[in-house]
Amino acid sequence: MTKRTAFFISDGTGITAEALGNSLLTQFEAIQFEKVTLPYIDTVAKAEAAVQQINDACITDGERPIIFDTIVNEEIRRILSQCDGFKIDVFSTFLSPLESELQTRSSYSVGGSHAIGEVNKYKDRIESVNYAIDNDDGGRIQQYDRADIIVLGVSRSGKTPTCLYMAMQFGIRAANYPLTEDDIHHSKLPEFLEKHRDKLYGLTIEPFQLSAIRQERRANSRYASLDQCDMEVRKVEKIFRDEGINCINTTNFSIEEIATRIMADFGLKRKIT
Amino acid sequence: MTKRTAFFISDGTGITAEALGNSLLTQFEAIQFEKVTLPYIDTVAKAEAAVQQINDACITDGERPIIFDTIVNEEIRRILSQCDGFKIDVFSTFLSPLESELQTRSSYSVGGSHAIGEVNKYKDRIESVNYAIDNDDGGRIQQYDRADIIVLGVSRSGKTPTCLYMAMQFGIRAANYPLTEDDIHHSKLPEFLEKHRDKLYGLTIEPFQLSAIRQERRANSRYASLDQCDMEVRKVEKIFRDEGINCINTTNFSIEEIATRIMADFGLKRKIT
Repeated sequence: MTKRTAFFISDGTGITAEALGNSLLTQFEAIQFEKVTLPYIDTVAKAEAAVQQINDACITDGERPIIFDTIVNEEIRRILSQCDGFKIDVFSTFLSPLESELQTRSSYSVGGSHAIGEVNKYKDRIESVNYAIDNDDGGRIQQYDRADIIVLGVSRSGKTPTCLYMAMQFGIRAANYPLTEDDIHHSKLPEFLEKHRDKLYGLTIEPFQLSAIRQERRANSRYASLDQCDMEVRKVEKIFRDEGINCINTTNFSIEEIATRIMADFGLKRKIT
Repeated sequence: MTKRTAFFISDGTGITAEALGNSLLTQFEAIQFEKVTLPYIDTVAKAEAAVQQINDACITDGERPIIFDTIVNEEIRRILSQCDGFKIDVFSTFLSPLESELQTRSSYSVGGSHAIGEVNKYKDRIESVNYAIDNDDGGRIQQYDRADIIVLGVSRSGKTPTCLYMAMQFGIRAANYPLTEDDIHHSKLPEFLEKHRDKLYGLTIEPFQLSAIRQERRANSRYASLDQCDMEVRKVEKIFRDEGINCINTTNFSIEEIATRIMADFGLKRKIT
């Protein structure tokens, strides 16, 4: 397999350069990329060091590294343009057509998109993250009135990271409640969830995958056995069906996909940008 | 202020289109953008509905919406190309030059970059998130041997969201320990942190901001008073200085910035991609 080095370079966090670069590079499955992120390249010295690192990689690989950059500062851009890399230059490609369309000059300011923005938005976000932690694993059911969504599922079906992701990225107040053996045994929802019916969303998962995840937690336990996982999943899926609760099978999805699909399916709008 | 609508459209999560679009749009501060994300546009029907929504916005605004899309599927692209929007088309702009440089055809596969990838990486990520939650607020100091980093700071300085972000996005095991009144009073580190000295990283914050954040939690308390916040911050900063612990002032930074700056400053490499 061919190997190439890819650099994601920014004068801010590097998050945009990484997202764009990864999206494009996943289209080339035949090539193995060594990925290097260089954030906060905001001084001449750092830019020169970056150029050196790129040129070194070029010599080592015997091929030009691929450079994804979202540098705004003109002087830094000029220094970086001298490197021995193949440049995918987002800003010079798209800013000029956008300037024409919007009939205004761009401000060429650094790092705006992942900067703090308004203090209130920052607080909303922290508040959502704290809410998700406080309301993890059925912690405080008396706070469900304030929830935007209550995620249900068996233990280890992905509730916690999904709720935290929704809180962190979208400012959503996401509580989660683990359906216990008792709930499962009675094949019905706990009564206190009835009044929150319109906020409920279910996670389900293939039993073999659930069993593998639980094995990591408690190896060779009844809890982790395929039989137990299979029984729990079947009964929980029946509850979701009987009660008309929308659900998603998390088996083949990343946290980002689970969270964004729930948002779309449930019609939730992001509360922070 | 002029108002324009911007659409972020994808057949996957929409995360890349949003990141790129937001980065570019923040360069146009004079314009107010109404932002709409349309993820999972992966059927003809959904694509046609998206076109309708764009055309409606065009009529309402009296200006063409700006379209950032990362659609891969050819048929969906063709439908979308008929909308009355100004298109920033990432894939058709950059894939072809990349194909030439890499001397290989792209696979035109959908949603690769935020998809689940290897199951082990998924587990690593969940494990890091669980570690961050278990080790929030000094929860289990006996697990510090397994930490990649231990974040220190006064209550409400941003430790929890920072650690969760590092866990979620980079697969880093980040514990956090709140410096208590007792630690602060003695102006020194708790003894059990001594052996983890090379993993310690400090957060600090402007007292007025800390006071505002604490007011939300416990209004008009001594805990939230500016005097108390000022005293705690000064003493904690002195501990960081005396002990030679790197630290960052979180006041003007978003969670992404705090996390990525710590990663860069501490020399931590992401463990998941």
